[in-house]
Amino acid sequence: MESYKKLEALFTKVSRLNHFISLGDWDMNTYMPPKGEESRGEALATLSEIRFGYMTAPEVKEWLDAAKQGKAELSAVQQANLREMERAWRSDNSLPVEFVGRKMRLTTRAHSVWRDSRAANDFAKFLPVLKELVELAREEGGYLAAGTSLSPLEALMNQYEPGITTKKVDEVFDNVKSWLPQLLQDILKKQASESVTAYSEKFPLDKQEALCKEFLRVWNFDMEAGRLDISPHPFTGMTKEDCRLTTNYIEETYVQSLYGVIHEGGHGKYEQNCGPRDMITQPVCEARSLGVHESQSLFAEFQIGHAASFVEYLAKRLPEFFEPQPAFSPENLKKALQRVQPGYIRVDADEVCYPLHVILRYEIERDLMEGKMEAEDVPRVWNEKMQQYLGLSTEGKDNVGCLQDVHWSMGSLGYFPTYALGAMYAAQIMASIRKELGDEKVDECLRTGNLGPLLEKQKEKIWDHGCLYETDDLITRATGEKLNPEYLRKHLEARYLGA
Amino acid sequence: MESYKKLEALFTKVSRLNHFISLGDWDMNTYMPPKGEESRGEALATLSEIRFGYMTAPEVKEWLDAAKQGKAELSAVQQANLREMERAWRSDNSLPVEFVGRKMRLTTRAHSVWRDSRAANDFAKFLPVLKELVELAREEGGYLAAGTSLSPLEALMNQYEPGITTKKVDEVFDNVKSWLPQLLQDILKKQASESVTAYSEKFPLDKQEALCKEFLRVWNFDMEAGRLDISPHPFTGMTKEDCRLTTNYIEETYVQSLYGVIHEGGHGKYEQNCGPRDMITQPVCEARSLGVHESQSLFAEFQIGHAASFVEYLAKRLPEFFEPQPAFSPENLKKALQRVQPGYIRVDADEVCYPLHVILRYEIERDLMEGKMEAEDVPRVWNEKMQQYLGLSTEGKDNVGCLQDVHWSMGSLGYFPTYALGAMYAAQIMASIRKELGDEKVDECLRTGNLGPLLEKQKEKIWDHGCLYETDDLITRATGEKLNPEYLRKHLEARYLGA
Repeated sequence: MESYKKLEALFTKVSRLNHFISLGDWDMNTYMPPKGEESRGEALATLSEIRFGYMTAPEVKEWLDAAKQGKAELSAVQQANLREMERAWRSDNSLPVEFVGRKMRLTTRAHSVWRDSRAANDFAKFLPVLKELVELAREEGGYLAAGTSLSPLEALMNQYEPGITTKKVDEVFDNVKSWLPQLLQDILKKQASESVTAYSEKFPLDKQEALCKEFLRVWNFDMEAGRLDISPHPFTGMTKEDCRLTTNYIEETYVQSLYGVIHEGGHGKYEQNCGPRDMITQPVCEARSLGVHESQSLFAEFQIGHAASFVEYLAKRLPEFFEPQPAFSPENLKKALQRVQPGYIRVDADEVCYPLHVILRYEIERDLMEGKMEAEDVPRVWNEKMQQYLGLSTEGKDNVGCLQDVHWSMGSLGYFPTYALGAMYAAQIMASIRKELGDEKVDECLRTGNLGPLLEKQKEKIWDHGCLYETDDLITRATGEKLNPEYLRKHLEARYLGA
Repeated sequence: MESYKKLEALFTKVSRLNHFISLGDWDMNTYMPPKGEESRGEALATLSEIRFGYMTAPEVKEWLDAAKQGKAELSAVQQANLREMERAWRSDNSLPVEFVGRKMRLTTRAHSVWRDSRAANDFAKFLPVLKELVELAREEGGYLAAGTSLSPLEALMNQYEPGITTKKVDEVFDNVKSWLPQLLQDILKKQASESVTAYSEKFPLDKQEALCKEFLRVWNFDMEAGRLDISPHPFTGMTKEDCRLTTNYIEETYVQSLYGVIHEGGHGKYEQNCGPRDMITQPVCEARSLGVHESQSLFAEFQIGHAASFVEYLAKRLPEFFEPQPAFSPENLKKALQRVQPGYIRVDADEVCYPLHVILRYEIERDLMEGKMEAEDVPRVWNEKMQQYLGLSTEGKDNVGCLQDVHWSMGSLGYFPTYALGAMYAAQIMASIRKELGDEKVDECLRTGNLGPLLEKQKEKIWDHGCLYETDDLITRATGEKLNPEYLRKHLEARYLGA
């Protein structure tokens, strides 16, 4: 118990450092003036080094070993906490210090080369760095996999989605690939005859902000324990007690800011309610995984936000913020918000096309990690898969093809699957909530904007548990079964092909 | 040299921690939602402890001793840096850890008791805590003075104004007391016959903000290396590369926000330009003292901002921001901005009354520290001195008397003198600039808002040097002599009794 208590004290200290690292990141993306960048970077690096020093001190391994020996004395929550402590420890201790420094230098350089290559639509310029990044990912995967039963790719994915296996990802993605491209074609065919009235007015930014804040209130986001600010790329950050969301506003449409805020608000609700609260500084109180985190944002954005009955509610509320216009009719709003349109850019994709963007990236990453393809093959394979899955060619358009995402330049291979896993978890969770509450009740919640009963279910199924259970266990407890992509299929079929 | 280099690395690391402590403070006062308070407090405490651990590690003393041994190898800047390193080290190492914790607990409690007592105008409620605070200050002064030639009061004052002595403070304050109360009466007599036209319109907050930002531009404050935000109590904070100012706005007048921003902007200009910049993470690049810091804010606010010729410039600019009104005439504006009026509250005082507020506090602190009076005597002595210096009685009005300031509840005895020292340094620096540039040139700068030549002189005399010299030396180099209160006298006589 003594060793366990020492570990708790260590992780509390680490959480205080994380507090400032998050604050530094938030500020950098919201209010920091340009000349503050260099010293902020140095200060963040110093804090990361201090944290790394704490996590890699020799006594931590001794405490972990001793705590595991005395596991029987620990409560169930403490045992789960110990498991997550060891996971965090392993992640910090499996990489040689030399490698960490090398990765930081490479990714700093890669980020700027990537930005320039994308701007110039010049893959050749990025290629040498991408080769290094792939080598680095293989090396990193090797370090992370050492002494485990994981493959290097699995080890990378496990950083973001603990417990995930290549077998499982292949299985669910193959399943999705077996029906989604055809479903997409069916939806396009159905929607081809629909006409959507475009917005005829601009949307003043201050009114958009008021709308976004009102919808955070609809979600019962606690504004005394969080904020909404502006940043170039929307994100959710900081701490559970002080959860900061960002969005940005353009005059042409309120949809980008509103649905951005609903998405980030979904992350924010999870953060504000995550885990056993008396363990708030401990790993067991963290979000379960990035996939589960994304499931909560996508639950808000798509399961709730784009549902026909919720769009009815939105149609009622919009005239409180903007001058009425024909495009605001419930029928038109539903058509506009449920419009499906294959495009090049992942972050702009609708929920039907989105998983295909992810599967494409996963397959490329997998083949790169397994040596079945090399960096120079990426544009060709990207183009082939885009044609196959979404019917679009990216030949000569690498800027909107394989150069579009920031992830590889950050050295984050294995991250993309979490986005699609999130969509599947969200559909599966909603299906189980519908089963428990009944469709009628759920639709009434959506139509009236009285989301309380749905939020209560999310809390009971996901938020309360933090990292108490492994993901498979969490999802099984929440929905009665492990991850099953059929729920996403049924959801998409019902929404886009249903009566 | 090796030990010196180790010290530089240590202080760089400490400066990175200070970066986050400052960011945490800034955010707490500007954007942090209420429920973020507890975890912010914990995170700040953790970072302070880490910093304290670095500063009190046994090897630091060894490095300091070795570096002093090898002082001959160091450049002049490095030698000055070493002196300031030792000063910082001494400050962190002279207090027992147990005392630091005890002080933090007492001041946390004292702050809330003080707030309540002030709100209730109930000194009796504050008295028991004030007794403890006085005991604590005596104890702290004793620790800080140990092994030096300083008295406990001097040791406390030296935390804020390194090098200051009671003898010097007594000497200059006695000097000021010998003429300022009479000067005040003469000014009041002169102004009694003047009538000032009051503002007849409200001042929209967004226009006030634009005005404040424009005047920061007049001062050439670098907005790419700083910001202006809103906080309940205006302050200047963060780093030299990213200097954050705050103010607040009320509709009734632009004077509070504008002159607040000019004052904070004066601090900000010092920060943005302070010290040898290649030593930016080192103590030698810090501001010389709080008195010198205040001299730069008061230089901006009073030496420049309230000068008749600068008020002419302001009169020309105001109609760009607000609807014209009779009160904006240059003559009326000068009368309004140079109006002298004794009042109870220090922070609202004009530049004539202000030093008397400070002297009163200093004399009480001195007598408390020296055991010549006790906490229970404070209201009586306060009242006597207020009558003597400013002709106002605070009997039964402790809320606007001895309960008005936050400092004692924070355990910060010895801080007040820096405010008055700042006013004197500012007058002395302006006198020397006038001598060098000529009155005509200076008045032209003020009348046209072209402050470049004055800022250049401030840079050359004060900003460039950071902590390179001790204060006496800095002021002598800047003005040709040590601190001399006669310059404040001449300044006030010329401005308020001159033709």
